[in-house]
Amino acid sequence: MHPILLHDDRLFPVEEKTRAIARALYQSVCNLPIISPHGHTDPRWFAYDNNFGNATELLITPDHYVFRMLYSQGIALESLGIPRWDGGNTERDPKKIWQLFADHYYLFAATPSRLWLDTVFKQVFGLTDMLCSGNAMAYYDHITAELAKPGFKPRALMDRFNIEVIATTEGALDPLTHHGTLKGTGWDKRVITTFRPDDVVDASREDFVANIAALGELTGEDTQTWQGYLNALRKRREVFRQHGATATDHGHPTAATADLSASQCEALYARVISGESGAEEQELFRAQMLTELAGMSVEDGMVMQIHPGSFRNHNQPLFAQFGRDKGHDIPMQTDYVNGLRPLLNKYGNEPGLSIILFTLDETVYARELAPLAGHYPSLKLGPAWWFHDSPEGMLRFRHQVTETAGFYNTVGFNDDTRAFLSIPARHDVARRIDCRFLAQLVVEHRLSEQEAAELAVQLTYKLAKQAYKLG
Amino acid sequence: MHPILLHDDRLFPVEEKTRAIARALYQSVCNLPIISPHGHTDPRWFAYDNNFGNATELLITPDHYVFRMLYSQGIALESLGIPRWDGGNTERDPKKIWQLFADHYYLFAATPSRLWLDTVFKQVFGLTDMLCSGNAMAYYDHITAELAKPGFKPRALMDRFNIEVIATTEGALDPLTHHGTLKGTGWDKRVITTFRPDDVVDASREDFVANIAALGELTGEDTQTWQGYLNALRKRREVFRQHGATATDHGHPTAATADLSASQCEALYARVISGESGAEEQELFRAQMLTELAGMSVEDGMVMQIHPGSFRNHNQPLFAQFGRDKGHDIPMQTDYVNGLRPLLNKYGNEPGLSIILFTLDETVYARELAPLAGHYPSLKLGPAWWFHDSPEGMLRFRHQVTETAGFYNTVGFNDDTRAFLSIPARHDVARRIDCRFLAQLVVEHRLSEQEAAELAVQLTYKLAKQAYKLG
Amino acid sequence: MHPILLHDDRLFPVEEKTRAIARALYQSVCNLPIISPHGHTDPRWFAYDNNFGNATELLITPDHYVFRMLYSQGIALESLGIPRWDGGNTERDPKKIWQLFADHYYLFAATPSRLWLDTVFKQVFGLTDMLCSGNAMAYYDHITAELAKPGFKPRALMDRFNIEVIATTEGALDPLTHHGTLKGTGWDKRVITTFRPDDVVDASREDFVANIAALGELTGEDTQTWQGYLNALRKRREVFRQHGATATDHGHPTAATADLSASQCEALYARVISGESGAEEQELFRAQMLTELAGMSVEDGMVMQIHPGSFRNHNQPLFAQFGRDKGHDIPMQTDYVNGLRPLLNKYGNEPGLSIILFTLDETVYARELAPLAGHYPSLKLGPAWWFHDSPEGMLRFRHQVTETAGFYNTVGFNDDTRAFLSIPARHDVARRIDCRFLAQLVVEHRLSEQEAAELAVQLTYKLAKQAYKLG
Repeated sequence: MHPILLHDDRLFPVEEKTRAIARALYQSVCNLPIISPHGHTDPRWFAYDNNFGNATELLITPDHYVFRMLYSQGIALESLGIPRWDGGNTERDPKKIWQLFADHYYLFAATPSRLWLDTVFKQVFGLTDMLCSGNAMAYYDHITAELAKPGFKPRALMDRFNIEVIATTEGALDPLTHHGTLKGTGWDKRVITTFRPDDVVDASREDFVANIAALGELTGEDTQTWQGYLNALRKRREVFRQHGATATDHGHPTAATADLSASQCEALYARVISGESGAEEQELFRAQMLTELAGMSVEDGMVMQIHPGSFRNHNQPLFAQFGRDKGHDIPMQTDYVNGLRPLLNKYGNEPGLSIILFTLDETVYARELAPLAGHYPSLKLGPAWWFHDSPEGMLRFRHQVTETAGFYNTVGFNDDTRAFLSIPARHDVARRIDCRFLAQLVVEHRLSEQEAAELAVQLTYKLAKQAYKLG
Repeated sequence: MHPILLHDDRLFPVEEKTRAIARALYQSVCNLPIISPHGHTDPRWFAYDNNFGNATELLITPDHYVFRMLYSQGIALESLGIPRWDGGNTERDPKKIWQLFADHYYLFAATPSRLWLDTVFKQVFGLTDMLCSGNAMAYYDHITAELAKPGFKPRALMDRFNIEVIATTEGALDPLTHHGTLKGTGWDKRVITTFRPDDVVDASREDFVANIAALGELTGEDTQTWQGYLNALRKRREVFRQHGATATDHGHPTAATADLSASQCEALYARVISGESGAEEQELFRAQMLTELAGMSVEDGMVMQIHPGSFRNHNQPLFAQFGRDKGHDIPMQTDYVNGLRPLLNKYGNEPGLSIILFTLDETVYARELAPLAGHYPSLKLGPAWWFHDSPEGMLRFRHQVTETAGFYNTVGFNDDTRAFLSIPARHDVARRIDCRFLAQLVVEHRLSEQEAAELAVQLTYKLAKQAYKLG
Repeated sequence: MHPILLHDDRLFPVEEKTRAIARALYQSVCNLPIISPHGHTDPRWFAYDNNFGNATELLITPDHYVFRMLYSQGIALESLGIPRWDGGNTERDPKKIWQLFADHYYLFAATPSRLWLDTVFKQVFGLTDMLCSGNAMAYYDHITAELAKPGFKPRALMDRFNIEVIATTEGALDPLTHHGTLKGTGWDKRVITTFRPDDVVDASREDFVANIAALGELTGEDTQTWQGYLNALRKRREVFRQHGATATDHGHPTAATADLSASQCEALYARVISGESGAEEQELFRAQMLTELAGMSVEDGMVMQIHPGSFRNHNQPLFAQFGRDKGHDIPMQTDYVNGLRPLLNKYGNEPGLSIILFTLDETVYARELAPLAGHYPSLKLGPAWWFHDSPEGMLRFRHQVTETAGFYNTVGFNDDTRAFLSIPARHDVARRIDCRFLAQLVVEHRLSEQEAAELAVQLTYKLAKQAYKLG
């Protein structure tokens, strides 16, 4: 007999008084709308509202959380149907892939992927037995059949999931066609874009020089000059704002910022667009650009998100065969104290500026991020991110951040996901863990029940809306 | 209705067996005298015993824990009456400031400041409703009225708080006038000084060269020579000891130490007193001086406290307007293993030497500090410090330190505070958390109840007295 | 009255539902055989099966966990009978040493040493009162008398302890005489060696050049050439495999690896065997050798263990008097992400390769090790190691690793000990803590009871056997 999926009290502490309070707090927030201000879903879904395909192509093949774990246990990516850059053969039969996944579902015990998938299986598709080898094909057939129904189209799911607003993320050169399609449909308030200019800021990318040229074409600015480049960025920000964007997003390797003179900037810019720059110049340029972009945020009010610290594409042979986002981005140590100082000394006290910091390096929660956010008016802390978007990760975040930064220098939860179906599951985990954390404070008489009730609503809904300026 | 302040069982675990043991342990130590061997209160309070002023100037304006949080949420320091260096206008009305503080008291939910303030409000002033906008003026008037009474004078509070001994901290050039006033009054045993020579050791300070000259004048030594400088330091240490000092205190940016030859020392000293030294020379000089000062401690028996790792005055524009200690000192990574080695290889095995280490970088608790203190006879660990002087911070300290260093390589609690009224509150938090930690060990059968009872007294009282050689 | 040693429920959480599940899980695994694939016991014990000596020489003098703590509290190593390199006097009377140890047994409260020793006292020797000054001599006499009995010989204890297989660790030049003695006795399957070539890989050792010459003699290879050196290593690996080895072991200061060209390797090798190499060349050579040795593991299937991050012999004066392994090895920060990349990019995707990573730097659990092991098929994570081989250390390991790496990228427990009698105690702690961790997941509905039951067996027995290829 398979275990039944998803106990109602999952993630709550077992001690009865604490559980009762956690449960009551959770009941008060579990049905609040979802604010999803930082995600990576595909705007085409919402623009054209087509049905999704089969279970495998929706839930396995695109989810690097899932296939990295299978790969770590010796399962070839080819056998999971992950497309190869070189066009080499990969498994085409979605049923075979699903069976392989189900055969190894035990590997995910106690991981967030397991929690999210079980929630999708039960709450989206009504399945109640745990996935295993024996029921794999029944699972596959059921999910795939459901996905063909009208109630499983993207917009229907947006309603069913009670997502009030969702932000996608687009590069600076993106024509925003699909967001354009939404314009005037009423959906343009619920599906907004985010300005992510890494493609025209990170000079280490192979396509950087070409991207700068394209940026010039797109904006009519002379991006061969520093001022033309900055103007082009301003114009793109304006276009993004017209498509709903309230925020920008910056995924740099480090948290380095710089504050160079105008002539130094011009000289550095000339180097990086020459295509001849070295790693140090590229790092300095990214650093300077964070400060420039902060200055633009002071001008136009866009909220700035900085999430540094990932060593992208660590596995070179795998990258050569399969490309980016294949589960081989590995977190690194990150220095926020020295890194952010040039930017903060220039703009950190600006009343209009709002910067949300993320980290993959948990050692900075108590040491650097909470003291910085507990001082600078421009800084707030994003939730536990990526590998730390998990029950234990969220608890560590709250335990290490709250005493110095309080709750109001944090911005609630965001899901940061490409996996649309898992969004309610991810928010549900955050709501449960936040309520659990608050409940522990209450039973230890560190917080009153009234305060906890208000904070539960803040952490679930209000802080995200406010931090991202979503109305 | 406002929540009632301060439950008797606050900070204890909710599980009943553990809570019962924690409570019993706490009952056995909660009335022990306070040993406060590392603090920053003003010796004038005890020397002249004048009443404090109003609620705002005692509790808000000088407390950077409080105003940094308000500043982080967009409240101007001027509106809180924080004095500006440039003489610019700031709010003068203490009632307006108190109201502003009360309006934002919710920001402190679950922070140690909240815990300390609530304890002061209830236990020192007898207030029982939580501070809020509505009762702000009643609070202000009550506190201010109480402060005018004889029972709220510093010495009366010393008795009421049951503070057996309190150490203040003075720079090497301090004339110790106020401690001198206490001489022979009976209070000179209860209020002692601590020798903090950063002002004549840290050559990066603007006043360093002048300080070296002043040190020469004060001691009659030729501080233009390396030997004269060292002699001058020895003389100041002697004077401090005559004013009760049993310890020195060193707040360097890093834990670097050095062991240079005599001729290297002379050359380096000539450089730093020339006022022409660079950052590396200044760092090397501080490093060498920690070793020199350890050598002096071997000679004269003064306990040495080293607490590195703060990036002072991170916010340059704010520093320019408001100066030091305005909530913008941010912790940094600190390397104790390589940093302390030169000093330890020279003096670390000396029977007479006692060095107490503090850190703002919790990642070193288990990795570096506990193994170092669990080996070197000269090393002991100070309590969780500054941002980590909090319930969670203390728990992390004990959880990460105890298994490798044991309890007897730690030195009990010290409050490290300028906020005199909060001293009992801070010690109370430490006593509760230590008892909670011990109780958990007992219920998990990792410690007997007898051992826990003895350890509770050690952690509360005996270890601090012994470590700081306080009789 | 002395407290009774060792409650049956020690280390389990006090909350009743969790404790009941933890206890049940523990009951299901507590009698499983011990797999000890990474240890440092003396093969002579098993080869010749002589009785051990007295209590002091078995339990105190060789245990640096014990005497480092005593030393940290001012007890001279000489008074504990630790032999001096320079032949200086040390205490010879084992009873005096035992008494001194017992007098200070309170220092070990809440340390793993205390837990292990109490377990040895009770479960191996049947003592039930806690050791103290008063019963020290009775303890000593009882233990020493028991040790003289046939049932306390090494092989009898192997059976009594239910140790299925134990691996010792030998240097590349070890003649493996004692393992040779075991050949064909039936014990050669239970007592196997491990290949630890640090003595011929670490060019910073004083004996390195001599070791390279000895390696040539032992193997008949010309170790004055790079190829001859590599061939010699291959031959030694073959000999070790004939003595049961399934694994190699590498204790480098850092996790650096390199992937140099053949000509660069030859030039570097010439430098290091010249005896003239500097610290950077030595580091680069160790780095290159990890990659070379990984390549050999691809060839011959030996499991590779890497455990970096210890600053050996931190206390130079103590090292000069007493030598290595005297409790003054201190953990350092370790960078696995950049360090291991050259090796992983060359061999990390090889199906045949298995590398087990250990760390003394807990900050890398969630940030680096879990993401690396959760991606690379060649990587697995060793258990919490050395200072972290403790209840709290093990809990931090599981809490920080599991959500990203799962359970199946870990390898169960190994004891890493020279202290033979403590092996069951150490495995017992790991079994209790793992069951406790699993129980918490169950009561929080993050894992089903069936899954927890299977995982308890995996973590106790199956994973270690499989990871170390022990049949």
